[in-house]
Amino acid sequence: MSAAVVAELEAALPGRVTTDPAALRALSTDRSGHVGEGLPVAAVLAESVEDVQHVCRTASAHGTPVVARGAGTGLAGGATAGDGEIVLSLERMDRVLEVSPQNRLAVVQAGVINGRLDAQLAEHGLWWSPDPASKDISTVGGNIAMNAGGLLCAKYGVTRESVLGLTVVLADGRRLDVGRRTVKGVTGYDLTALMIGSEGTLGIIVEATLRLRPAVSGETPTLTATFSSIVDAAAASSALVHAGHIPAAMELLDRPCLDALTSFTGEDPSQGGQAFLLLQCDGESAAAELQACAAILQSHGGRVQVARDQAEAQRLFGLRRQMFPALEARGTPLIEDVAVPLDRMADAFAEIRRIEQDCGVLIPTAAHAGDGNLHPTFSFEGHRVPERIWEAAGRIFEMALAMGGTLTGEHGVGLLKRRWLVDELGADQFALQRQIKELFDPAGILNPGKVFAELSR
Amino acid sequence: MSAAVVAELEAALPGRVTTDPAALRALSTDRSGHVGEGLPVAAVLAESVEDVQHVCRTASAHGTPVVARGAGTGLAGGATAGDGEIVLSLERMDRVLEVSPQNRLAVVQAGVINGRLDAQLAEHGLWWSPDPASKDISTVGGNIAMNAGGLLCAKYGVTRESVLGLTVVLADGRRLDVGRRTVKGVTGYDLTALMIGSEGTLGIIVEATLRLRPAVSGETPTLTATFSSIVDAAAASSALVHAGHIPAAMELLDRPCLDALTSFTGEDPSQGGQAFLLLQCDGESAAAELQACAAILQSHGGRVQVARDQAEAQRLFGLRRQMFPALEARGTPLIEDVAVPLDRMADAFAEIRRIEQDCGVLIPTAAHAGDGNLHPTFSFEGHRVPERIWEAAGRIFEMALAMGGTLTGEHGVGLLKRRWLVDELGADQFALQRQIKELFDPAGILNPGKVFAELSR
Ligand SMILES: Cc1cc2nc3c(=O)[nH]c(=O)nc-3n(C[C@H](O)[C@H](O)[C@H](O)COP(=O)(O)OP(=O)(O)OC[C@H]3O[C@@H](n4cnc5c(N)ncnc54)[C@H](O)[C@@H]3O)c2cc1C
Ligand SMILES: Cc1cc2nc3c(=O)[nH]c(=O)nc-3n(C[C@H](O)[C@H](O)[C@H](O)COP(=O)(O)OP(=O)(O)OC[C@H]3O[C@@H](n4cnc5c(N)ncnc54)[C@H](O)[C@@H]3O)c2cc1C
Repeated sequence: MSAAVVAELEAALPGRVTTDPAALRALSTDRSGHVGEGLPVAAVLAESVEDVQHVCRTASAHGTPVVARGAGTGLAGGATAGDGEIVLSLERMDRVLEVSPQNRLAVVQAGVINGRLDAQLAEHGLWWSPDPASKDISTVGGNIAMNAGGLLCAKYGVTRESVLGLTVVLADGRRLDVGRRTVKGVTGYDLTALMIGSEGTLGIIVEATLRLRPAVSGETPTLTATFSSIVDAAAASSALVHAGHIPAAMELLDRPCLDALTSFTGEDPSQGGQAFLLLQCDGESAAAELQACAAILQSHGGRVQVARDQAEAQRLFGLRRQMFPALEARGTPLIEDVAVPLDRMADAFAEIRRIEQDCGVLIPTAAHAGDGNLHPTFSFEGHRVPERIWEAAGRIFEMALAMGGTLTGEHGVGLLKRRWLVDELGADQFALQRQIKELFDPAGILNPGKVFAELSR
Repeated sequence: MSAAVVAELEAALPGRVTTDPAALRALSTDRSGHVGEGLPVAAVLAESVEDVQHVCRTASAHGTPVVARGAGTGLAGGATAGDGEIVLSLERMDRVLEVSPQNRLAVVQAGVINGRLDAQLAEHGLWWSPDPASKDISTVGGNIAMNAGGLLCAKYGVTRESVLGLTVVLADGRRLDVGRRTVKGVTGYDLTALMIGSEGTLGIIVEATLRLRPAVSGETPTLTATFSSIVDAAAASSALVHAGHIPAAMELLDRPCLDALTSFTGEDPSQGGQAFLLLQCDGESAAAELQACAAILQSHGGRVQVARDQAEAQRLFGLRRQMFPALEARGTPLIEDVAVPLDRMADAFAEIRRIEQDCGVLIPTAAHAGDGNLHPTFSFEGHRVPERIWEAAGRIFEMALAMGGTLTGEHGVGLLKRRWLVDELGADQFALQRQIKELFDPAGILNPGKVFAELSR
């Protein structure tokens, strides 16, 4: 059965199909640390929309599951693939098809790396604002499939706000163009938004029309603040938002994060503080806004230091980007991703400290403090998350939901959060979402088992 | 049959059901000038979520269509109702349930008038940015159901970008909470976005969690520019966007619009010009931005005049808001709403002038020039759009689609644009959208015949 599929694909797509076990192994995991069961039957490195259509048609005919794949940097296990599945990689479809400064848009293939696109846009004084910390290693298609967030969301929005239209290949191989090239448009239902964040379960994103912004010019003044407790630091960040400020970036690290960072990089940016806040302003009034933010942080007990210059600011953000590798250095990381309403951020940190105590596990927690998105992180050995850690993570999910928050602010559901999905959505919405999945993919071949667990649950 | 439905509703919802013909007549039209056939069987003025659930349950049991209604200011015929239908008005559900400056959100009932909400938010230094010209007479629920645009979209986005979550009553009466209270969240498919712009066909929006912004403070410097041709004026606006500027508002009127305005108000803001541009900047660098915009407009042949003060600016925007009544004064208006890519705006105006000539009809056209959204307008007598006007309108739709644009930038499909829907969506997407409608509303009782014409087409 699977031999027949592979033979068909190889005949039709010469040079684009691999069955080499080492290659398959590399193409069937993501950065969640999770590994699929067994190996996929083949991976196709598609080079065109037609290639993708061909894969979907063939897979449909045989009922073979297809796992779409960008760069495999996902943190939810969404791009993991295993026995009997085809990996459909978009990485070779990495061209920027059009940059239109007049219309402030770009049309790209799904496999282009976000950071590479941005370098090209910079030549036009333009910018695609979605800015995950994985910008230089993740694809635009993956960013869209996950509705990726990042460091700049409070001010510039998430991926959804920066996509005008998509070309999608449906499970049965049909090509669908949704959305538009215009700034505004309300013809029919918003299927573009429905595809964004659908994690490879509704269709394969092959091209995207991206809404661009003028590149932000001028200095980006930056400060750091240390606090004697993470709860104080979180409260200070909330106060700043309450006062009407929207810094471009506002990143918060607790002491366990700082410990991991210090042992990985040899440097403790907080110089022994219990919490560390990194804040950057941009735009015309950046300097004045930074001063105002500094005053609020100080009045909440922060020891504020303004970065000397842009080099210093870049060095600080570079350190922040070492956070993930620093955690990986401690073992397999499980990075959680809850978001809570802004005024509950301090409570959430306090509760995480309690869960740490109760469960006897360390939970280094970083936050995008401008949007209440917390990344509590666990470390373990091997590829299976120990039950003890799931228990602590489960308590964090419950906490977030009880606060009116969400399971996942930006990393998605994938494999790792599907157990809790129904708790957030409720039974009716869960059922309705599964029906939408069935509508788009009646045979259930697109990334089965992701997001919704068994459809027969 | 319908007597039974009405009796059931009256018994269960005393004081909230009307069958008075005059009341029904008023509650079964919108501002499109279109009138439904016959009169609805009853109108329910719901006062609670439970009331709405009751109406949907009763209507479901009897297979009676339900037309949701905000303030009836729609321009696409979406809220028109007729024979055998129930009007479900949300106007009494007009409470602001929560304003949270800490979380920058408000929770409101669907029937609250946008302008009244804003007055309340202003006390907190906050603001809900969706700003249709009908702000003071339309409901937040109607704005959401239409994904309303307005004057400030190029800079502040459309309604979709300012809604975090919704409470919806489904066709069968179940209550569904979609979305969230957090700034970010990616749990499952984005049903909030799917509901936004669904024009009463997927569910009844009863409550909404709105994303707020800090109120924009400071002066809002304003300029006017007149041009010797509308094509030049459109080209100048595009150049300004191309140069990286995003004014808060940029409104363009052609000579036929100016004629209508002059005879209605007695004042010609263009002093005889062929085209009139009204531009406003806001934020910290507003004054500098206005200067830069002025220079670009001048270099494109604009005669620029900066408004003396805020009073003058307000007077000018007040005049702009008279545009719709001025057109209504000429007869029944048919207001079209195409959007084109920004770099095609000048071409679109040139083409509209050609269509005017070819079809022998006058087409006053206003534009939200920052987002390529044009409102070509027709006048006629009575309630039926003459075929000659449909022909001209049809040519405008074709033009917009050929330019990579859209049928409707902000007013929606409703009754008036459903003939052309499939031309924009294509057959596959059209079918998929109808299947989504069937999924949410299997009995087809929610605003039937709107958006998709007959489901059996
Ligand atoms: C160091 C590090 C930092 C990170 N920081 C952030 C951050 O700040 N914010 C954030 O949101 N995420 C972050 N992530 C997570 C990850 O980078 C994002 O989710 C990213 O969007 C994934 O892109 P990718 O190309 O690697 O997708 P993959 O991992 O290959 O795939 C992710 C999911 O999308 C699906 N998919 C991929 N491409 C397509 C397509 N073309 N069509 C349909 N489905 C597709 C896959 O099936 C899978 O379910 C980080 C990850 C790392 C390793
Ligand atoms: C003078 C004037 C200026 C205008 N300017 C603009 C503008 O600048 N931008 C713009 O976008 N529009 C504009 N409009 C159009 C109109 O005001 C908007 O579409 C507005 O959002 C409609 O709100 P409403 O409460 O009047 O809705 P209604 O007209 O009552 O309903 C509109 C549609 O939404 C549905 N609906 C209403 N409430 C609900 C609900 N709670 N749940 C589910 N469905 C519902 C109805 O069934 C109908 O299909 C203008 C109209 C006028 C008269």
